[in-house]
Amino acid sequence: MATMKDIATRLGVSLSTVSKGLNGGQDISDSLRQTILDTAVEVGYINRKAKKQDTRSVAVFIENMEYEKADQFGYDIVLGFQQAAYREKWGVTIIPADHTLQKKHKYDAYMLQGKYSAAFFMGFSLDDPWMNQLADTSIPTVLLDNFIPINPKVSSIGTDSEEGIDMAIDHLARLGHEKIAFLNGSAGSTISNQRMLAYLNSMARHHLPIDTSMAVYGYFVAEAAKYHVPGFLDQGATAILCGNDLIASGVIQCCNDLGYSVPGDISVIGFDDIPLAANLRPALTTIAQNRNELGQCAYYTLHAMIHNVSLSKNLLRPNLILRDSTAIAKPRLVVRRSNDKDTVDNVNPELYSQFAKQQLLK
Amino acid sequence: MATMKDIATRLGVSLSTVSKGLNGGQDISDSLRQTILDTAVEVGYINRKAKKQDTRSVAVFIENMEYEKADQFGYDIVLGFQQAAYREKWGVTIIPADHTLQKKHKYDAYMLQGKYSAAFFMGFSLDDPWMNQLADTSIPTVLLDNFIPINPKVSSIGTDSEEGIDMAIDHLARLGHEKIAFLNGSAGSTISNQRMLAYLNSMARHHLPIDTSMAVYGYFVAEAAKYHVPGFLDQGATAILCGNDLIASGVIQCCNDLGYSVPGDISVIGFDDIPLAANLRPALTTIAQNRNELGQCAYYTLHAMIHNVSLSKNLLRPNLILRDSTAIAKPRLVVRRSNDKDTVDNVNPELYSQFAKQQLLK
Repeated sequence: MATMKDIATRLGVSLSTVSKGLNGGQDISDSLRQTILDTAVEVGYINRKAKKQDTRSVAVFIENMEYEKADQFGYDIVLGFQQAAYREKWGVTIIPADHTLQKKHKYDAYMLQGKYSAAFFMGFSLDDPWMNQLADTSIPTVLLDNFIPINPKVSSIGTDSEEGIDMAIDHLARLGHEKIAFLNGSAGSTISNQRMLAYLNSMARHHLPIDTSMAVYGYFVAEAAKYHVPGFLDQGATAILCGNDLIASGVIQCCNDLGYSVPGDISVIGFDDIPLAANLRPALTTIAQNRNELGQCAYYTLHAMIHNVSLSKNLLRPNLILRDSTAIAKPRLVVRRSNDKDTVDNVNPELYSQFAKQQLLK
Repeated sequence: MATMKDIATRLGVSLSTVSKGLNGGQDISDSLRQTILDTAVEVGYINRKAKKQDTRSVAVFIENMEYEKADQFGYDIVLGFQQAAYREKWGVTIIPADHTLQKKHKYDAYMLQGKYSAAFFMGFSLDDPWMNQLADTSIPTVLLDNFIPINPKVSSIGTDSEEGIDMAIDHLARLGHEKIAFLNGSAGSTISNQRMLAYLNSMARHHLPIDTSMAVYGYFVAEAAKYHVPGFLDQGATAILCGNDLIASGVIQCCNDLGYSVPGDISVIGFDDIPLAANLRPALTTIAQNRNELGQCAYYTLHAMIHNVSLSKNLLRPNLILRDSTAIAKPRLVVRRSNDKDTVDNVNPELYSQFAKQQLLK
């Protein structure tokens, strides 16, 4: 294990200069401090405080995710992480980490200077400056909803999208829906790609028709709905699964604007179960991520990684929360352009009456 | 929380009878003991000893997996689990659980009677009697290489097959291999299905030709090779990826018997890195599962689940261990049946000389 002396020898400076560089002393230049930190990382120096288990300190870096109020997505994740960490007497520091911070400091050097022994990243995307540096960091690091290949020191956590989407499609199929559209979040995000694959797999597993024009990427905002919902309705969709609850709120609004009722004409399902979901009209059926558990999971994953267990991917169970935005599929007359062969589509009165009967018998 | 008194009231027996039933007392009948245990499970009784964290006791059930000697697959997994558990003062009991045991006892009742607060299952398959009962158990349970949907009390651990197979295909592609066959383990196992999907995805990602007759299920034994290797060779395979190291040992033998040298003519890659792998001639390049870490991961997963974090899937990083069974792809003249249109296949001298040059420059 490298010591402060190794750093001093390598740079030809005194031990006290190295100590100032590592511990935030005042009377050395910023560039020398940076050189000392970079060298410390290079030789594999580990701060004594970070080494001692009973005073372990971890950093939570947050980028592009709201977390300060109880109704924001990140709030419960941070809370869950803190609860689990405090139970084992770890110190937690919350650090907003925008591009400016990430460009100013190298990741390993920042961690060393702050005496953190591990970190949890929330809300980052693959184009954040620090993400490239994770390919060869030696600091145990857990990412929410992102994935870095190969490096055994970096692990991912998230909610099992495959199971969540399968539960949603299963619920819709039982209600007699066949033409189920999927308005996903932004293209290029790890999580969106997983969810698209999950949707296609689940539709196939349920022997439902897959029409690629009914499975599209949008953005993680309500406004995404108006660009895609009219097309879905034209093609006879009776249900729309959404990449998150905000998109779902836009889809409900858009259906209403076009004269369709939710869930009377169209069923809508969201993803996440943010506090907004229960307050929509109709209240939103959604695939819930347990955010407190996500935070706790991040802690337990770091805990294992500090003991040299090289985790790769860790997924939590989702829950399908049934509210008022889904109902039995209503047969729809879809009148298409007259040069189409099929002018009437998706009418299956037999199936409809069968489901209606089951519903009445409950 | 239900108490012993609740069980006594429900059954109309005395408290001391209930206590005998739960704690293995002698002078009650087997059928009454079973009724008491079943009722205890039904009312949600949790044994006081199992509730107290500092005396927690966990069961490791092993079915159809060798683990008693250091060179057997399960040995290091059990060891890793015990090491992690003892670090936090948990007691570990190893229990061989064949079908007889599983048929004799219900899972929840067995756990209650043994005062175990959690369990780790190794070597089970989906047709084991206890697997069905896991759909609604309330006891934190972790499965190696199997998956139970929905139930938040049951979680899976394993090695990330997708990443491991991608590393192997990547290694072969860099050596100039294009026709890469995959002799998988048994059909119907969760892990085999994941690996087949991973192979197909990785071949596609590397823009390599996918021929479904080159991607087949066999069995997890060396003998599987002789049924499939001749076909692979006839079709011009220059590399064979295998579902485990035993299959790979059979593949090497089979290639030799047919007059092909490994790795001169055919490259072979295994999966697992059991001790046998390094002792084969040639020593086997293989996708390693770190079995000690798998055991530790099982413990950390149970630890999180006992704190009500509902984990679903947890994967460890694999390692590609490079030994002597892989080499630069050798152009092969494949003479097929004369009524085939292509009589010569897979000859790419340009690529070959390019790789040969790179190799010489090293």
